[in-house]
Amino acid sequence: MTQDLQSQAIKNPVDVAEYLFRRLKQVGVESVHGVPGDYNLVALDYIPKAGLKWVGNCNELNAGYAADGYARVKGVSAIVTTFGVGELSTVNAIAGAYSEYVPIVHIVGYPSTLSQKNGALLHHTLGNGDFTVFSRMSREISCAVSMLNDQHEAATLIDNAIRECILKSRPVYISLPSDMVQKKIDGARLDTPLDLDYPPNDPEAEDYVVDVVLKYLHEAKNPVIVVDGCAIRHRALKETHDLVKKSGIPTFVAPMGKGAVDETLPNYGGVYAGDGSNAGVKERVESADLVLSIGAIKSDFNTAGFTIRMSQMNSIDFHSYQVKVRYSEYPGVRMNGVLAKITQKLGKLNIEAGPIPNNKIPQQEIDSSSPVITHAWLWPRLGQWLRKDDVLITETGTSNFGVWETRFPENVNAISQVLWGSIGYATGACQGAALAAQEKGLKRTILFTGDGSFQLTAQEVSTMLRNNLSPIIFVICNKGYTIERLIHGMEDAYNDVQEWKYKELPGVFGAKDGQVLTYRVETKEELEKLFTDEEFSSGETKKMRFVELVMPWDDAPAALKGVAESAARTNSKVAEQS
Amino acid sequence: MTQDLQSQAIKNPVDVAEYLFRRLKQVGVESVHGVPGDYNLVALDYIPKAGLKWVGNCNELNAGYAADGYARVKGVSAIVTTFGVGELSTVNAIAGAYSEYVPIVHIVGYPSTLSQKNGALLHHTLGNGDFTVFSRMSREISCAVSMLNDQHEAATLIDNAIRECILKSRPVYISLPSDMVQKKIDGARLDTPLDLDYPPNDPEAEDYVVDVVLKYLHEAKNPVIVVDGCAIRHRALKETHDLVKKSGIPTFVAPMGKGAVDETLPNYGGVYAGDGSNAGVKERVESADLVLSIGAIKSDFNTAGFTIRMSQMNSIDFHSYQVKVRYSEYPGVRMNGVLAKITQKLGKLNIEAGPIPNNKIPQQEIDSSSPVITHAWLWPRLGQWLRKDDVLITETGTSNFGVWETRFPENVNAISQVLWGSIGYATGACQGAALAAQEKGLKRTILFTGDGSFQLTAQEVSTMLRNNLSPIIFVICNKGYTIERLIHGMEDAYNDVQEWKYKELPGVFGAKDGQVLTYRVETKEELEKLFTDEEFSSGETKKMRFVELVMPWDDAPAALKGVAESAARTNSKVAEQS
Repeated sequence: MTQDLQSQAIKNPVDVAEYLFRRLKQVGVESVHGVPGDYNLVALDYIPKAGLKWVGNCNELNAGYAADGYARVKGVSAIVTTFGVGELSTVNAIAGAYSEYVPIVHIVGYPSTLSQKNGALLHHTLGNGDFTVFSRMSREISCAVSMLNDQHEAATLIDNAIRECILKSRPVYISLPSDMVQKKIDGARLDTPLDLDYPPNDPEAEDYVVDVVLKYLHEAKNPVIVVDGCAIRHRALKETHDLVKKSGIPTFVAPMGKGAVDETLPNYGGVYAGDGSNAGVKERVESADLVLSIGAIKSDFNTAGFTIRMSQMNSIDFHSYQVKVRYSEYPGVRMNGVLAKITQKLGKLNIEAGPIPNNKIPQQEIDSSSPVITHAWLWPRLGQWLRKDDVLITETGTSNFGVWETRFPENVNAISQVLWGSIGYATGACQGAALAAQEKGLKRTILFTGDGSFQLTAQEVSTMLRNNLSPIIFVICNKGYTIERLIHGMEDAYNDVQEWKYKELPGVFGAKDGQVLTYRVETKEELEKLFTDEEFSSGETKKMRFVELVMPWDDAPAALKGVAESAARTNSKVAEQS
Repeated sequence: MTQDLQSQAIKNPVDVAEYLFRRLKQVGVESVHGVPGDYNLVALDYIPKAGLKWVGNCNELNAGYAADGYARVKGVSAIVTTFGVGELSTVNAIAGAYSEYVPIVHIVGYPSTLSQKNGALLHHTLGNGDFTVFSRMSREISCAVSMLNDQHEAATLIDNAIRECILKSRPVYISLPSDMVQKKIDGARLDTPLDLDYPPNDPEAEDYVVDVVLKYLHEAKNPVIVVDGCAIRHRALKETHDLVKKSGIPTFVAPMGKGAVDETLPNYGGVYAGDGSNAGVKERVESADLVLSIGAIKSDFNTAGFTIRMSQMNSIDFHSYQVKVRYSEYPGVRMNGVLAKITQKLGKLNIEAGPIPNNKIPQQEIDSSSPVITHAWLWPRLGQWLRKDDVLITETGTSNFGVWETRFPENVNAISQVLWGSIGYATGACQGAALAAQEKGLKRTILFTGDGSFQLTAQEVSTMLRNNLSPIIFVICNKGYTIERLIHGMEDAYNDVQEWKYKELPGVFGAKDGQVLTYRVETKEELEKLFTDEEFSSGETKKMRFVELVMPWDDAPAALKGVAESAARTNSKVAEQS
């Protein structure tokens, strides 16, 4: 059957690539990240046709990080790479998204199905005729793999991949062979939006769990709530917020839950991370007789080196896949419906007050006559400068631990990679987050990274300029990998980095006249001045702001020092039987 | 048994990490590439102890490319990354090395065996307690995977991995858990060097094949030799050179074989790549009645889009794994021994002359009054400027095809990635190659890359400066991905890149006063002046030289134009039954 006859047989025919990009647009993607490559070029033509914007990153790893940042602001993102070389370059970013539950649709331009069938010896292959090897690698870090090798199943596979991506909040992999791009399929299907609702809990099971939880909650004399990353990543923020607000229960966040709770609420008590907790928080949480734990991820860095102490006998754990009350598990009962019903049926509770976190600079720092910018001073001070609706990205390293001491205004979206912890992530993620923020009408995107980390992915500043984004970028200049120094090799050369003239980079990357404002800040006084400079702090300007923030090479947030010691211990701990 | 008692039981105890790095030093590694990460930090302490140098790259993908470049000059290389985030960032470089037969020992710092056994929820994991997932991914692109989870087998696994790496000329993967680094093992074993000789062919089989080949060779009236990439990668260059020189048979190279043959020999005839061949070569090779094909890799880009035409009835193919005479296969008979014996027993041959390649600029370019630097002019001109023993890296794109028109002086090491073709490779590879060249006492390392490609991995210029390397870098400034334009989207925005001030980058990357010379060259006259400037061309200076080489956005080497058309056709070709 010829292409023409085929089209006639289909009502409302659309090309496979058009179908794919229109579906992405329907679920909220407005910009597509990635790098062109010959196996994806024809597909790229469909991006503007579907009303989407092509970002055009400098490389694929950075594009993957950017897609991750974009998804954390917009709810979902898409990246296009090319077979072999492109897709493998971004695999670390996709693994990070898998680890941290970030929904990215990864579209890989493939050689034609004919070349695949013939086992052709093409460029970007291992030279062995195996065209499934890279998809096998990606299968380990994707919650769905859709190989579009037959147009008759293309629409189903695309729909399935996008739905899985969003519902499981993890990356999916879609192969798009070059000869499949323009194959005609049924476009009428696009008139029915994808069903993206979570399957509801079994009502009887849900009611049962709600009753059990309420029983313990009413018996408790001193309950607390601890909110963690999966509440954000599995979209339980509204239910969480309603419960926190209506119940008045003292509420804390784990580091990965930073931003999940309105930190201006009177019952918000600060960050709980065992020995790395905000002042007073450890004692308060660990003396509670009931902990409602929402979306917990008890990883090493998120628990300050496994130092949290909560008895399972005093815990109720809410997850996307189950609820656990003490040791009783209720698999398949998703937190969202349960939390909503608990809030609804709350009744009268016994509540004691929690600690009140604040943005005050510690007295010792205020008393200090040193002009040096310390972490102990910086992070609380940052909280005073932040504004409602800011998007704040912090890099793995000092920034990610420092931000534990920053109290947020309302609705700050805090982006970091506490579990995966890939340095370089934050600069890439900032590009995607800033673009997504712009699309959502959010005013300010702020990046805190370190010099060592910045060097991995620095060229994405170019992509930000190319896309006319205006984030506020702080590069902490402290001569190397401080987080690594604290774990091992404090003064070893392998933790040093080459000293760059960081703030000259935007100019070299082609910033137009007036497109960027650059600063170098070496003292607290200079940073104070900057924070009060309205042009610098503006949410309205179209100018990128780029700050070299000079800090001592051996200073770090208190929480990081503890975690680093713990990591060093864990690394050297010897199995008993050896 | 305590650590002390254990050590006493072992004669000449050494730590596992020391054993590993000393073995690497024994096989010729002098510098180790990579990026620090907390799971590898303790191991890094052993690098200087073993008399090795730590490079310290800006990121892991670049480190992988650098290790690839280093191995192509030194014969083998090593890279250290950290679990998860680090190893996955470099996976594209390792896949490229697998594809192109480059021996890289990839050492991954792992969490302790105790953490692995406990399924601990550590940073850099997928959060699922699975510590084998990343090694499973790497298994697809490694010829050996050695997981050092038990010190009693560590030495055997290390020795096996390094030997496989070198003999199979492909990457291997070694996991080094943090608690394994300092375990004591038997160091006496280090006194016996690894056996790195290829297993000899079965003598009877080898003699049989030699006789068959000689029979056809003596019958031939007009034989030619075509040398390709596997002659380089599988270490058959000496045997090839001896045969070419002694026999006087007209000899050609495929693009991936560029540099394998002494191009100053009177019987060297130029590049054979079907329709992309040097002038006169296609006719000459395809009219031969016998082609001795050494180490062929008949990939699309290496054959100018599958346009080579050699009858198998007229072919004898020499490989690392077999020899094939017409349709008769001799599996397990390695080319090296066969080629050596053929040269030895050569006797009298019938030989016709081949074309004589030259470095002359085409008459049309000489006659042209345009000052513009064209590809047709540049690449032959480059051949006049190159010197004996130069290391020349060309990027996938215009450079990789342009160099087909460059005739080399003696012993030029030409590095490119014709099969894998990952853009960004060349700049990373240049760092490793320049370091390896310096270690070998070679004078000049020269890079040709394009602006689009350069942007992917630009920060490795910083690593070159940090390591006091002095390559000569040409960035072809032609406003984007020219190779992609020719395949699809000639004027589409996705093939544009942001315009950088390229030559200002070394300064921003912290070049010291006098450490770098920068140039912008827009006309043939200016480039002529540069080529004749002794400071610029010097092999003795310690200064990096960085050139912006401005060329028209739509110009490309003739061979690339043909290949791009062919690639576009292949991409859109539809399977018959669809």
